Amino acid sequence: MTEVGVGLIGLGNVGTGALQILTENARSLREKLGFRLAVKTVCSRNIHAKKSLVCPDGITRTDNWRDVVNNPEVDIVVELIGGTATARNIIEESLKQRKSVVTANKELMALCGPELWSLANANGVNIAMEASVAGGIPIHTVLREGIAGDSVAELYGILNGTSNFILTEIEKSNAAFDSVLAEAQQLGYAEADPSADVDGLDARSKLAILAALAFGEKLTPSDIFTEGIRRITPVDFQYAHQLKHTVRLLCLARRTADGIVLSVRPSLIPQDTILAHVTGAYNAIWIRGQYGEDTFYYGRGAGSKPTGVAVVSDLMRVAREIRFGSPERVSPFAHERLGEWKPLPISTQELPYFLRFRVEDKAGIIATLATILAKHRIGLDAVLQLPREDWRNLPFVITTEPAKEQAIREALVEIRTADFLVEAPLAMPMERGFGGGR
Amino acid sequence: MTEVGVGLIGLGNVGTGALQILTENARSLREKLGFRLAVKTVCSRNIHAKKSLVCPDGITRTDNWRDVVNNPEVDIVVELIGGTATARNIIEESLKQRKSVVTANKELMALCGPELWSLANANGVNIAMEASVAGGIPIHTVLREGIAGDSVAELYGILNGTSNFILTEIEKSNAAFDSVLAEAQQLGYAEADPSADVDGLDARSKLAILAALAFGEKLTPSDIFTEGIRRITPVDFQYAHQLKHTVRLLCLARRTADGIVLSVRPSLIPQDTILAHVTGAYNAIWIRGQYGEDTFYYGRGAGSKPTGVAVVSDLMRVAREIRFGSPERVSPFAHERLGEWKPLPISTQELPYFLRFRVEDKAGIIATLATILAKHRIGLDAVLQLPREDWRNLPFVITTEPAKEQAIREALVEIRTADFLVEAPLAMPMERGFGGGR
Repeated sequence: MTEVGVGLIGLGNVGTGALQILTENARSLREKLGFRLAVKTVCSRNIHAKKSLVCPDGITRTDNWRDVVNNPEVDIVVELIGGTATARNIIEESLKQRKSVVTANKELMALCGPELWSLANANGVNIAMEASVAGGIPIHTVLREGIAGDSVAELYGILNGTSNFILTEIEKSNAAFDSVLAEAQQLGYAEADPSADVDGLDARSKLAILAALAFGEKLTPSDIFTEGIRRITPVDFQYAHQLKHTVRLLCLARRTADGIVLSVRPSLIPQDTILAHVTGAYNAIWIRGQYGEDTFYYGRGAGSKPTGVAVVSDLMRVAREIRFGSPERVSPFAHERLGEWKPLPISTQELPYFLRFRVEDKAGIIATLATILAKHRIGLDAVLQLPREDWRNLPFVITTEPAKEQAIREALVEIRTADFLVEAPLAMPMERGFGGGR
Repeated sequence: MTEVGVGLIGLGNVGTGALQILTENARSLREKLGFRLAVKTVCSRNIHAKKSLVCPDGITRTDNWRDVVNNPEVDIVVELIGGTATARNIIEESLKQRKSVVTANKELMALCGPELWSLANANGVNIAMEASVAGGIPIHTVLREGIAGDSVAELYGILNGTSNFILTEIEKSNAAFDSVLAEAQQLGYAEADPSADVDGLDARSKLAILAALAFGEKLTPSDIFTEGIRRITPVDFQYAHQLKHTVRLLCLARRTADGIVLSVRPSLIPQDTILAHVTGAYNAIWIRGQYGEDTFYYGRGAGSKPTGVAVVSDLMRVAREIRFGSPERVSPFAHERLGEWKPLPISTQELPYFLRFRVEDKAGIIATLATILAKHRIGLDAVLQLPREDWRNLPFVITTEPAKEQAIREALVEIRTADFLVEAPLAMPMERGFGGGR
């Protein structure tokens, strides 16, 4: 076999990036591999509209994915259409035909990774998914091989570039969420329906995949407490800065004696940590290993070519296996809940909290809040109030001593009935679980 | 085969770390692998003195490395003694006996990697060397697999933790090199003979390995321009800070139209880059890919357990190959100089330079220096002089417009004859080839 055949389904952003690299960089890839990675066919729903597509001679084009999966020259099927319906059909059909699969589909792999893996294994083929998480950062390779000898204790990530772009724009320009979102949409960083990004769902799928791999436990998106960034305002950054912190949509998976805490939520992180320096549409992952201590990985979170690199690097690995033969593989997923590291409810987490209130100013507000917090055994750390003019919508912040999330929630339920509140309080944990570069 | 047998030669810092992980973490490793990674024998020159060594029953101890290599139960030999003489014998003998090798030996792999790889390949076995570069950072895995689909354009690294510790201590405490070195020696960060670290030789070996892997070109330490950190003083940091830069022992491999520039030298880097935030005994690598854009990797540069993780992760990968069969492998080394990316002399590099002089103050010094620089067609950017009392040893700095290193050198040769100099000028390039987190 002097080549391994590739069929590409989906010619959006990532598909065209991968195709470009496979074409332009073909010589270098062949030198690294010792054989050719040959694209045989490409598929897109609207293939006939893709006139500008750089697609070398000899590559057939189709709008029917079954043509790709059934093509006898195709050894590896690349699924890049996203979603969970057709994509699942494509992957299952490919595996049944004993073709390995490379996918960027975080949603599907987070939901049904273990089942699809079992199907792949039963058919003696592989599924690779580097491109499903953190675009240009080879974090799947790092966890699967690079630091496989370690036991991950904690993993923190900024895994959604759109949210990180929006948050750091709010931070930089003091603009409101809605106007920054509109800007991100215009720049192509955010979708017309931004929910998957700004409500944390995209990050949740990615965290589910990484945490499963890191802890060797069966974890699904529903195990992950998730909150989006829609309520973050410039004032939250102003108060965070006073505390020498910033705000990021933080994904975390933290092993404790009782299990794993998993969450995706806006959180305060200290300004002097490397994670706080991750701005714009970048992603980053901070890992603390039981033996290897801390490592940190940073790069483009998305984008045609960075994610294309992930697809092509996966193709190289899978093609080598096909070429050189590797009958057994180790699953990146746990197939049953081992129970050793079961997910814990977020309510058990104990951290200091940043509570931001908006009130109609009157006497006794702090006294009322302090009384309610004390009743729930939550110690106050600081009360911060920047000078403001509008007494009818006055934002201020209380930070607490480390407290159980459960207590914070119960206190906030009680606080919510107070007549001075302009809107529901905003609560963010103040993270300090990771070290910094200085 | 329900297990793969391991023999460990060298029980220093890294060896005891690896043994501890293999022992303590055995259950987790077995779960990930699906089979057992069984240490069969350990070897140390002074094995009888290692009474405190935690070494489970069933592991034989020896002070003769041939016992390990000849042990029929050993499938993989781990070489952790360092140096190039006995280590080479151990590795060659192991490969000839068709045993794969895991090594942390940067010096040997930088010098004879391609030859040893050929020997391994001829015998159908593997050599893995993750632990040879950047301790806890799985950078070898990243380059070999994680971003294999990309073409690396530039690679910047802080690859010697000892030098980075010393430099950041000088920066923090304004102490002299010698006193900080003594402190580093007391803390165990620096050897009694610190030359390999502070003269850049250790970093040079690491860069040779990484650059060969990144560019697929045959590169050896002698291709790399190398300068150590002995001449760096607190005053250099003070001037660098005025320029919003800091000083690091920077390793770089940069592809240009004509070839690759390779160097290890103290360099100015902008303070607002992530690389500038790497302090203490940490290592980091910044990579710019043609497609994947920038990625960044950070972690412990050395240490018993972080480097032990690299050894154990390599063992897992090699053990999987042995267990599942993988007859052909792709070399991490180019075996001949392909010529496409031949190393270029550093003299061709064009960058702004930071020139620090120490002079006995008198009239006309700047005029003299400016005249000589102008003669060599070097444009001045700024002249910096912090207030000082001692006119007989006055440090000041000239920064230049981008200039060829060759021109800088020639100008400095001419300047060196000036009667006002207290010591030879210090020249550092001002790097700006990598982006920042902000």
